[in-house]
Amino acid sequence: MPTVRDAVLDVLRLHGMNTFFGNPGSTEIPFLADLPSDFSYILGLNEVVAASMADGHARATGRPTLVSLHSTVGLGNAMGALVNAQHAHSPVVALVGQQTRALVHSRAVLTNEHPHVLPLGTVKFAAEPVRAARVPAVLSQAIHLARLSPAGPVCVSVPMDDWHRECDPLDARYTLPRHVFADSVLNPSAFARLLDRVRAARNPALVVGPALDTEEGYRHTTALAERLGAPVWIDWLPDRCGFPTGHPAFRGTLGPDAPSTAALFTGHDLVVALGCRVFRYFVDAPAPHLPAGTELVSVTADPQDAATAVVGDCYLGAPAAAAELLASALPATARAAPGGRVLPLAYTDAAPRLLTAD
Amino acid sequence: MPTVRDAVLDVLRLHGMNTFFGNPGSTEIPFLADLPSDFSYILGLNEVVAASMADGHARATGRPTLVSLHSTVGLGNAMGALVNAQHAHSPVVALVGQQTRALVHSRAVLTNEHPHVLPLGTVKFAAEPVRAARVPAVLSQAIHLARLSPAGPVCVSVPMDDWHRECDPLDARYTLPRHVFADSVLNPSAFARLLDRVRAARNPALVVGPALDTEEGYRHTTALAERLGAPVWIDWLPDRCGFPTGHPAFRGTLGPDAPSTAALFTGHDLVVALGCRVFRYFVDAPAPHLPAGTELVSVTADPQDAATAVVGDCYLGAPAAAAELLASALPATARAAPGGRVLPLAYTDAAPRLLTAD
Amino acid sequence: MPTVRDAVLDVLRLHGMNTFFGNPGSTEIPFLADLPSDFSYILGLNEVVAASMADGHARATGRPTLVSLHSTVGLGNAMGALVNAQHAHSPVVALVGQQTRALVHSRAVLTNEHPHVLPLGTVKFAAEPVRAARVPAVLSQAIHLARLSPAGPVCVSVPMDDWHRECDPLDARYTLPRHVFADSVLNPSAFARLLDRVRAARNPALVVGPALDTEEGYRHTTALAERLGAPVWIDWLPDRCGFPTGHPAFRGTLGPDAPSTAALFTGHDLVVALGCRVFRYFVDAPAPHLPAGTELVSVTADPQDAATAVVGDCYLGAPAAAAELLASALPATARAAPGGRVLPLAYTDAAPRLLTAD
Amino acid sequence: MPTVRDAVLDVLRLHGMNTFFGNPGSTEIPFLADLPSDFSYILGLNEVVAASMADGHARATGRPTLVSLHSTVGLGNAMGALVNAQHAHSPVVALVGQQTRALVHSRAVLTNEHPHVLPLGTVKFAAEPVRAARVPAVLSQAIHLARLSPAGPVCVSVPMDDWHRECDPLDARYTLPRHVFADSVLNPSAFARLLDRVRAARNPALVVGPALDTEEGYRHTTALAERLGAPVWIDWLPDRCGFPTGHPAFRGTLGPDAPSTAALFTGHDLVVALGCRVFRYFVDAPAPHLPAGTELVSVTADPQDAATAVVGDCYLGAPAAAAELLASALPATARAAPGGRVLPLAYTDAAPRLLTAD
Repeated sequence: MPTVRDAVLDVLRLHGMNTFFGNPGSTEIPFLADLPSDFSYILGLNEVVAASMADGHARATGRPTLVSLHSTVGLGNAMGALVNAQHAHSPVVALVGQQTRALVHSRAVLTNEHPHVLPLGTVKFAAEPVRAARVPAVLSQAIHLARLSPAGPVCVSVPMDDWHRECDPLDARYTLPRHVFADSVLNPSAFARLLDRVRAARNPALVVGPALDTEEGYRHTTALAERLGAPVWIDWLPDRCGFPTGHPAFRGTLGPDAPSTAALFTGHDLVVALGCRVFRYFVDAPAPHLPAGTELVSVTADPQDAATAVVGDCYLGAPAAAAELLASALPATARAAPGGRVLPLAYTDAAPRLLTAD
Repeated sequence: MPTVRDAVLDVLRLHGMNTFFGNPGSTEIPFLADLPSDFSYILGLNEVVAASMADGHARATGRPTLVSLHSTVGLGNAMGALVNAQHAHSPVVALVGQQTRALVHSRAVLTNEHPHVLPLGTVKFAAEPVRAARVPAVLSQAIHLARLSPAGPVCVSVPMDDWHRECDPLDARYTLPRHVFADSVLNPSAFARLLDRVRAARNPALVVGPALDTEEGYRHTTALAERLGAPVWIDWLPDRCGFPTGHPAFRGTLGPDAPSTAALFTGHDLVVALGCRVFRYFVDAPAPHLPAGTELVSVTADPQDAATAVVGDCYLGAPAAAAELLASALPATARAAPGGRVLPLAYTDAAPRLLTAD
Repeated sequence: MPTVRDAVLDVLRLHGMNTFFGNPGSTEIPFLADLPSDFSYILGLNEVVAASMADGHARATGRPTLVSLHSTVGLGNAMGALVNAQHAHSPVVALVGQQTRALVHSRAVLTNEHPHVLPLGTVKFAAEPVRAARVPAVLSQAIHLARLSPAGPVCVSVPMDDWHRECDPLDARYTLPRHVFADSVLNPSAFARLLDRVRAARNPALVVGPALDTEEGYRHTTALAERLGAPVWIDWLPDRCGFPTGHPAFRGTLGPDAPSTAALFTGHDLVVALGCRVFRYFVDAPAPHLPAGTELVSVTADPQDAATAVVGDCYLGAPAAAAELLASALPATARAAPGGRVLPLAYTDAAPRLLTAD
Repeated sequence: MPTVRDAVLDVLRLHGMNTFFGNPGSTEIPFLADLPSDFSYILGLNEVVAASMADGHARATGRPTLVSLHSTVGLGNAMGALVNAQHAHSPVVALVGQQTRALVHSRAVLTNEHPHVLPLGTVKFAAEPVRAARVPAVLSQAIHLARLSPAGPVCVSVPMDDWHRECDPLDARYTLPRHVFADSVLNPSAFARLLDRVRAARNPALVVGPALDTEEGYRHTTALAERLGAPVWIDWLPDRCGFPTGHPAFRGTLGPDAPSTAALFTGHDLVVALGCRVFRYFVDAPAPHLPAGTELVSVTADPQDAATAVVGDCYLGAPAAAAELLASALPATARAAPGGRVLPLAYTDAAPRLLTAD
């Protein structure tokens, strides 16, 4: 089984972050020792230097760039450079060493005591994964966030005993390769890519989130659903309802977990998720997020939702505008409209029931 | 001379925030007493209620909505409701009472002790103006930020003795009515508005910021400058240079203060600012930001820059993409290209000197 | 009239902080230019160096030591050194430059954008005075807090236009020379000093705060009041009542402002304040905190109350234990017990009324 | 094997916290369901009410009091009440629900998204244990900190899947019953207790930390070592050296982990630790902190060190003053002085070597 470190190196490769910078200490050794030959580690003898080099590399390449910092004082030393990166919208990804999990709370030597608070004021996102298996996913989120507009530095603290733990594929499903497009979906070339993807779908399904609960949202999502002949779900326990529940295409809410959600998409080759979290689970279940053969693209205006989505490619931008443009650009479908009328959802404290009337 | 309160009420009117919610205490009385008849104050008897009503109003109207909270405990009571507003991307603007400035640092009764730290984790922006005359500007920024994508709550703390202080028009120039468009500039209807504005300009000028320092940025800004026949400045003390300094249209940097910057724009009816702060002053000078008859529109991907710009209307979105679309949509100009070749800038510790060679 | 800078230099002299360290930038020039000859400024060419020297000086001398840091990036660069100072309980006082107040909220070049948030995780106290006249008082508080147990670094941000503003003596009264004893009052030598001070009082008065609202607190404060023959007030709008309201010595609450509070102490040469804020004003009034000829000593377990007290010397430690030790060590008084019985307080929304029954 | 919940209930019993308050949600159910009959849970129908009841209970009893809060919005709702508790120095212990660890980073429904940042400004300590087995220890630290002067609220977030995990006794050794005395050690009755404990020791050992690295510290710790005839260690990798390395009693540093440290204390029935962390480990090793039959008492001025010590009872207060008082109150020892002269320590990157010269 791959280790956390294996999975992290794959995340870095996916983002082209093979060249990185740092000033090492013991808490980073499990990550740094025996680095594969496709990675280059460039040493700076104070974190000001290492983080500034990473900042320059990020500006020159336009790509997120990693800087490996030593626990607490190392992060502290780098903070002036992170302020500069913040002002320059430079996507510097600081990876900070932490003591082993067993010793963090007794404030052992080299504990990174305030990983969530120390970097405040300089970074867009500061996190320490709540368990080892989440390290690749959290680093992946951080990289996406660093790139997304307005770009800027982020910070992830990793306990030193996490690196060599096994990374279960069922956990890894949260870290599947995903593309989050930093260009707005409304950029003509980005939109063309989305349009091609949707046009190629044989049997698409829609999921709409609370962001569509506006007059404009209802108009454009119903138009899109009708143009696609697609069934529509809203997400689970939504703050608000982004689609008219009386519309024939309406199918109720997604499920509270991965199996019940994935089951709904059987037979659909593409899920188009607009303005919602992907997915707003309530219960953890070790299962795939989508049926085999189903893919997902989402559009959201919230960079954090884009970064934390558990599956699929994501476009940043206003979902209502994306729906409008899609509806007007797509040809009329030859697909039959979804059969039957779905009555408004009856919530229960068990799984949501969908009542279908013929 | 108008008071701070007068200026704040005008800011609220500008944003259509005449209906607001609250649970009052003594620190808010100078703001609330004798409210003009075009304002409605709706009372909630705990801040949970008042802030939740404001959240509902913001969701239902799609507009930023004010909630007036009592100092410290009042803000604390509202924080559960602010968490909900954050999750729902609801633009709730919390205005929190603070003791009189003379008593804040002795921790007098009703001091809002941690106005910058207490709301962390729920709001996009937390501020307390560093002097009374800045209250209208800071509230204006907060309102813009609350609306801009991803929308969400913001928080401004106002010392109770600020409300009846005079608000000098020279300070108020930072609070001029401005439109910040929450729609992306790449939304076709928003872009059409920007295009009309630029097309109508008789003699436009360009300012480009560090965000354009990419291959794509250089290509599209030079194309736009040539299409417009417009001179180009970069902003003052830029992190990076967003325009080729050897290009004939290049004119050097803006000045370090309002008078030296405004002077450069004499004769231009429109300044188009792309990917820069408006303006990155170093020195305060009580003077207009633009010459009489000059207007400004800006495009930036950074909501904070959009909200804190001191003058002009602003479009959110990628400035390079906006330049590309403008350059391709504008007709060729009949204007002469800017005369002369401007040598690369020589920095001095005095005002920047521009060396022109014929 | 003295300037803010004059008053700050006096605060530094009072604490023996004539030698300090820094790496200067333009925002600090108004403070640093033409430094009086009794001050030594030791230059470090990066803030890591300057702050580390200050840390070493503080450890070697046992005294709070100033480091002058440049705005935002300067503070950032110093943060690794501040982490070290925090771990070593070293009283480093970081004084950080800030733009002029007029430009802070437009995020001008050199703005210290997050003075309250950036230093979080490393300092005990981070502040930016809400007006120029408070700078000396806030710096004084910061120095006291840095020294008090557990000692550690603090941070104060000062707008560059504050330094040359006039500092009104009525504001300066918040900055009167005060001693805050870092030793616990229960240290035998510290207690001896307090005991001497109380024993020497001709006609002392007591103020007791919410911290004495325990069985132990009531027992020891009543014993002390009786031993001293002293009248007893509780502080204004207290969370809880630290003295039995039916006791003959009880006199009600202090006033909501300086004049009404000071008036109560007429004829008393010493006020002994136990476990309360000094003073918990509600209303600002430019007047002395005590009548001429009256002095004050306080005992509190809260370092922040000790540091922010507006007048008098302060001992850190448990006020109930201090009362117990004082009561047992003081000789019986020859003073008459306070005359008359004071009825329990009737609160009104006007000033507190004291109802005296003969 | 006991579960995390079993261990937490024992921690609560130890502190007499059997009555607690709350407003439940699903994330707290694993903790609350089937509560043992010696616990009383008092329901409040909004967190403002539950937290205010806990505050009142803490004030009335003088004991730390638990309030169980629902994830994120529940904590938000309680924050006004926590502000009140903070002002009143009331030791309210907020226990906040969190999603299951697997779902936290995908921001699932009911995720407590900012457990370290949301409560800032109201609490002395905010934590989320980095693994399930640390929950009892972190809660124990939080309770100690809430009580220690200046008392005030604290906040601990617990993932819902932690409650029923097994709690290994080797982890539990970090949670052994410990007393941390909130009274200063300089309080005569507290000091008497410490004196009795030290006087009763058959063969005590001393550990001194960086806080003793002052003239006063050296004087009093050498006097104490000589009076006790005790060997002296300094802690591992100390910032500074709190004992003269040339003194015959000096024995070098403790070890970097539990086994190497415990081994040094073989044959000593009592370790007296002054002004140091207990213990400053660098490496985790699942072993007891002390040999069988050895106990430990510590004196520190740092409440956080008192709360996070891994073993032994702790007195708050100045360690140098405690050493002075102990040295003067203890009888001369009949024990032989520690044999041999220990040469100054030679640091290596392996375990510290102690060179003994006869």
